[in-house]
Amino acid sequence: MSAPAPFNPADARFAERIRRSFERQKAMALIGAALLQVEAGRVEIGLPFRADLTQQKGYVHGGIIGMIADSAAGYAAYSLMPASASLVTVEYKINILAPALGSLTAIGEVVKPGRTLTVARAEVYAALGKHVATMQQTLMMLPDTPDLPADQ
Amino acid sequence: MSAPAPFNPADARFAERIRRSFERQKAMALIGAALLQVEAGRVEIGLPFRADLTQQKGYVHGGIIGMIADSAAGYAAYSLMPASASLVTVEYKINILAPALGSLTAIGEVVKPGRTLTVARAEVYAALGKHVATMQQTLMMLPDTPDLPADQ
Amino acid sequence: MSAPAPFNPADARFAERIRRSFERQKAMALIGAALLQVEAGRVEIGLPFRADLTQQKGYVHGGIIGMIADSAAGYAAYSLMPASASLVTVEYKINILAPALGSLTAIGEVVKPGRTLTVARAEVYAALGKHVATMQQTLMMLPDTPDLPADQ
Amino acid sequence: MSAPAPFNPADARFAERIRRSFERQKAMALIGAALLQVEAGRVEIGLPFRADLTQQKGYVHGGIIGMIADSAAGYAAYSLMPASASLVTVEYKINILAPALGSLTAIGEVVKPGRTLTVARAEVYAALGKHVATMQQTLMMLPDTPDLPADQ
Repeated sequence: MSAPAPFNPADARFAERIRRSFERQKAMALIGAALLQVEAGRVEIGLPFRADLTQQKGYVHGGIIGMIADSAAGYAAYSLMPASASLVTVEYKINILAPALGSLTAIGEVVKPGRTLTVARAEVYAALGKHVATMQQTLMMLPDTPDLPADQ
Repeated sequence: MSAPAPFNPADARFAERIRRSFERQKAMALIGAALLQVEAGRVEIGLPFRADLTQQKGYVHGGIIGMIADSAAGYAAYSLMPASASLVTVEYKINILAPALGSLTAIGEVVKPGRTLTVARAEVYAALGKHVATMQQTLMMLPDTPDLPADQ
Repeated sequence: MSAPAPFNPADARFAERIRRSFERQKAMALIGAALLQVEAGRVEIGLPFRADLTQQKGYVHGGIIGMIADSAAGYAAYSLMPASASLVTVEYKINILAPALGSLTAIGEVVKPGRTLTVARAEVYAALGKHVATMQQTLMMLPDTPDLPADQ
Repeated sequence: MSAPAPFNPADARFAERIRRSFERQKAMALIGAALLQVEAGRVEIGLPFRADLTQQKGYVHGGIIGMIADSAAGYAAYSLMPASASLVTVEYKINILAPALGSLTAIGEVVKPGRTLTVARAEVYAALGKHVATMQQTLMMLPDTPDLPADQ
């Protein structure tokens, strides 16, 4: 049994909304990332290892690590928002803590939800819990803006 | 005629070395990024638009923008290093300044080269010079470490 | 003659407004910082050396460097805002490039002004132009909020 | 009873070493900061409120918040180092989460200790546990370098 969620989502159906949004992220499909767990204020994304995700030394590219961390923390923030809002990444800062080999898991969590700005974090782990990256991120809510391409 | 480069590369054949390293970055091939210009302390990477690079609203994914910025600034730093060294990204911080539509160019430049740590920046532009992201990055040189997978 | 300012301030009397705001920053008086130059989108702050600004090794404390960089970049952003608005620092990221000895100058400049968020940068220099720090910062405009304590 | 410290300090007398180093930080005396708790990988710094620490709206200046966060996280990292080493801040990134009123406490903790680079975090709280800032920081160990001014 896990502890009760510390955050109050504005939309009870946030998990379904996030799953649909994630499916529209073609860049996540390109790298083979999968949405694992979705809770209020906490989202997990998995990335199975593939050789075409690596940099010149054979480790997973730092930018790829940034992609799953950015999405995990962003969706953690998005889980608390009203259904009518969308969200943009304002900025993030990521430390690469160790060379990333093998499959990865990114865990995003909200640090401080806000009316306009939300601050979130993500931790990225490789096999056996090896900590490979830590990220701090700022997101901005756009009220009454659909989470869809502008022409839809 | 451009102004003389303000940096002194330790290895005169840095451009060739960077081109070979970039070719080994399978993640750059995956997203279709191309190495455009290589100068001492300054590297340009281009990213033609593709639908499979986008996030849920149809813009280029922030993590993809981070990937080309990370590589452009990293190779700018790498251009000044001895041929026997390799380089790892310690951390980067990126601000997304505007939604990224269309093809992108990332320009990486060294701010302060150092014996162990180098600080670099990258600016990412869309068509017509629209400024879509700005990044600040720290890199660490690993002396006498080949820029190759450990088993080669 | 300097080049024309690339930014359009919303309030022609921005320089006077910034000087009054700076005078209310008691923390700037505490460390002896002085507002040097104020232009649209660009602000310079000087910090004469004092022994009581140092850390354990005798250099100016990294947090003090952050203070003048934060204020310089923040006022650069503030220079473009309407007179009725106030501004808060959302976040900043600073790299210390070299030990800071002697008097310092922080130069803040707007990278991208925005309706809600503005991104700015600051560079901090010691004597002879030695580059000691570089900062990237995000600020949020609060429309129709006086730049004064809440009880005034 | 607290959980056993997860980190192994290289020098058993780290707490005394940190207290002496903190006393040499004249900038900490200037702002009235006090070293509260020192554990392996975790350091707490307190900052009683004073009007001369404020910015133009009467809140504690963001740069002052950065100062105590920088020192708390830095000393958390320093607690794990050998007695012969000293430490420099490479960079930090801080989000201001809420206006800081009243006395503050900064809690620094090591995220990932390393031979050369250590990543640490700091959280800053106001009264009643209000979370006012979160910081992510990179530090570099200088082996066999005394933590003293160069002329001593």
